[in-house]
Amino acid sequence: MLTNSTRRAVGHRPLRRPAAYFSARLASSSSSPTRTQKLAAWSAGLRYDDLPPVVVQKTKDFFLDWYACAIGGRHHAAVQAIDTFAKEMGPTSGSAELLHRPGGTSAAFAALVNGGASHVVEQDDLHNSSMVHPATVVFPAALAVAQATGANGKDLITASVAGYDVACRIGAFLGPSHYAKFHTTATAGIYGAAAASAHLLKLDAAQTLSALGTAGTQAAGLWQFLVDATHGKQVHTAKAGFDGVLAAYTAKAGLLGTADVLEGVNGMAVSMVPGKSTPEALDNNLGGEYSITESSFKWHASCRHTHGSADGLLQLMKEHNLSAADIEKVNCHVYAAALDVLGRTVGAPQTIHQSKFSMGFVLAVVAHRGRATVLDFTEEALSDAELDAFRQRVNMILDPEIEAVFPEKWQARVVVTTKSGQVYEQFVESAKGDPDQSLTQEELEEKSQRIAEYAGVKDMAALEKTFARVWKLENETDLTGFTIV
Amino acid sequence: MLTNSTRRAVGHRPLRRPAAYFSARLASSSSSPTRTQKLAAWSAGLRYDDLPPVVVQKTKDFFLDWYACAIGGRHHAAVQAIDTFAKEMGPTSGSAELLHRPGGTSAAFAALVNGGASHVVEQDDLHNSSMVHPATVVFPAALAVAQATGANGKDLITASVAGYDVACRIGAFLGPSHYAKFHTTATAGIYGAAAASAHLLKLDAAQTLSALGTAGTQAAGLWQFLVDATHGKQVHTAKAGFDGVLAAYTAKAGLLGTADVLEGVNGMAVSMVPGKSTPEALDNNLGGEYSITESSFKWHASCRHTHGSADGLLQLMKEHNLSAADIEKVNCHVYAAALDVLGRTVGAPQTIHQSKFSMGFVLAVVAHRGRATVLDFTEEALSDAELDAFRQRVNMILDPEIEAVFPEKWQARVVVTTKSGQVYEQFVESAKGDPDQSLTQEELEEKSQRIAEYAGVKDMAALEKTFARVWKLENETDLTGFTIV
Repeated sequence: MLTNSTRRAVGHRPLRRPAAYFSARLASSSSSPTRTQKLAAWSAGLRYDDLPPVVVQKTKDFFLDWYACAIGGRHHAAVQAIDTFAKEMGPTSGSAELLHRPGGTSAAFAALVNGGASHVVEQDDLHNSSMVHPATVVFPAALAVAQATGANGKDLITASVAGYDVACRIGAFLGPSHYAKFHTTATAGIYGAAAASAHLLKLDAAQTLSALGTAGTQAAGLWQFLVDATHGKQVHTAKAGFDGVLAAYTAKAGLLGTADVLEGVNGMAVSMVPGKSTPEALDNNLGGEYSITESSFKWHASCRHTHGSADGLLQLMKEHNLSAADIEKVNCHVYAAALDVLGRTVGAPQTIHQSKFSMGFVLAVVAHRGRATVLDFTEEALSDAELDAFRQRVNMILDPEIEAVFPEKWQARVVVTTKSGQVYEQFVESAKGDPDQSLTQEELEEKSQRIAEYAGVKDMAALEKTFARVWKLENETDLTGFTIV
Repeated sequence: MLTNSTRRAVGHRPLRRPAAYFSARLASSSSSPTRTQKLAAWSAGLRYDDLPPVVVQKTKDFFLDWYACAIGGRHHAAVQAIDTFAKEMGPTSGSAELLHRPGGTSAAFAALVNGGASHVVEQDDLHNSSMVHPATVVFPAALAVAQATGANGKDLITASVAGYDVACRIGAFLGPSHYAKFHTTATAGIYGAAAASAHLLKLDAAQTLSALGTAGTQAAGLWQFLVDATHGKQVHTAKAGFDGVLAAYTAKAGLLGTADVLEGVNGMAVSMVPGKSTPEALDNNLGGEYSITESSFKWHASCRHTHGSADGLLQLMKEHNLSAADIEKVNCHVYAAALDVLGRTVGAPQTIHQSKFSMGFVLAVVAHRGRATVLDFTEEALSDAELDAFRQRVNMILDPEIEAVFPEKWQARVVVTTKSGQVYEQFVESAKGDPDQSLTQEELEEKSQRIAEYAGVKDMAALEKTFARVWKLENETDLTGFTIV
């Protein structure tokens, strides 16, 4: 590694390089391309006809799931503030749409506002191994740039697939030690937004590499907002979208981003990964596997760590025809991270947000209502004595075998004791919504409707029409008309 | 420090907090305010009438110096690309001005484009102890928001003073170990842009704290661009301005930034300072000393590490009435960083940029022309045989005594041997432009004219008028009209 002083000295090379410089580097046979170059070249070269049908279907599924989540966040104070900023600073018209109000804007501001709204209800997807929430950063930018460039449904799908891979692969590259310091959905997500935007702008491999370089030098997002429950999360997803769009558009206009922003001597791994990065994640089996097929839907509207236990309880109740009143006790055997995260809400939850992170409360809701949607976490539910009584009959227990395979697998084992003294046990290998038990289109529509209802959407007929459009997204030639009031 | 898992757990508090939350925290007598709170409160509370006359004068001096630098960068490819982005994404009119072309825009885009242009010619100021170039990040945002809000000259001056202190104090807080990984002008500069913007928006202490929190969670900027001489530097200053403006405007609109983004358990020091931070830099003697009085002008258009030797040579030549032809040899006794940085250009410089980092070439220019302005580093000069011959008669020598006091002091000792065998020696305590030998208004005008000439400004009469406006900036009631073609 260069020392600080030698690094500064390196800077004394000429500031201006012709764009051909990068093309030459990419074409050069004398030096083998870096992993970042391979990723950029793969992203730029991806074509709709290359995509296996399952990838196309998954992209449509996640697009709809994201769309509902973006609608769900519209009333959040941070989203309103970001929208005010967009009104003050952006154009008052444009072909990129805000999802929550009529009146177009530019692609960058649509990505900003829609991105800010996408992560609020926390029902968006999760790519487990990279710890990235890809939809919330990729789709706002992809839809905005697609609308701004007059792209069609196939273009949008292809760009989104590229964005997913770039975001998730870079998230996996950065790894857990980065995640411990930085909000990876923002710091890796910005690359996904840049790659999707670059694809829609038809940037070549060299320009896409440049866009990734400019994305990386803007990558930011600290966890400090969690300490006082402020609005950093919304800023992160909003800005990942805006900044990714900026990276792609400026690359097109001739701005040169650095070529090796991830693995370079002063790049992201050296500066923002305190532990070990995973270089092979960047280019391993590119095109042979797709990150978008590895992402998970969130079916329940609660913390992801409650999902396995909720599924197990539902299964046992169905199998043994139990009602909530029949149940004396529920023991949930879980991995350590579930105890860490959920363990803070051991008493009665005080707020709706807390209630989604209380294993007891979530299982009480599931037992009484057969579901745990955004509509089930309410002030009324919080003060429901029956739910509270059930909550107190739920325990969490660390299970060494389950812990041993986490986070590869997010397993659970649920043991129910009935009031009549019977004991039933259910092992859960994965949660509903995971890749091996993905949601059906009907379930995705149901989830979307509930989120839209939660968000106070009036025009539910428009939502139905959007369902139909999304299921045949590859045939869409006009991507406008996604605003819903 | 919280572990990763407990940190996540902390996040499960309610997401929405009333704005009053921060006001209450600030007003609370039960807990003493953090250093960041003190800095925010001081910044928000700063009034023009508080400012000592020397601070007002310095602000006007640095404003003019910045203005010339921003003009100087207009033709850079990165600035043009960023301007293209502004045209595509921003509004086509607005009361904030781009300095290089007519047609207003919004404050955020003016800060973006003008900020991108400000650091190109590398003639802008440097605050030594924090390693921040404050003008390039504070003034673009301050002028843009001042124009957008209809502020007057006193408002602009006061906001800029606040921005300087916030940027430089946070830069000093982050310190050398941060600087080794991140471009501090960007990562600390964003706070300066936010504070100046917040001041012009008349945000109170709680809102200003919120703006600083949102600034910090966007702070980014890697040195990797130095490795391949790409355009990261322009992205950094452009985005520090834009993002700082965003932080302030969204804080005004109700977005809550985290309260302790610098010293908090998951804040910037923990995540982005590998070594030691300097907390007392944040609030030590607030209002008793002003960062803007500690910043240095760059008189010569060469690497700052050549300035002491250039000054020494000029002084000896004047004192002993020497011409370049009289000089046999120049020995420059310097600190180690000068050798590190300049040592890479030991042969004949190949590019104009390299020539500014060649001690021999810079001293050759100074000896032959009596100056080293932007106009003196040209292709013609590069191929001038006389300059090249002089260059080869210049040596650098490490001086332990000079090294011992660096970087507190940037000293030099120049020893000239004449062709007639006489030896003259000059010790240089600080360079022309440093706080203790600041530039006069005449010198600033001269420097500005040369940069404007370098940038191909046609309307030099307009520049003269700007000089007059800036020298009485505190009396200006209308801050428009700074665009120059």
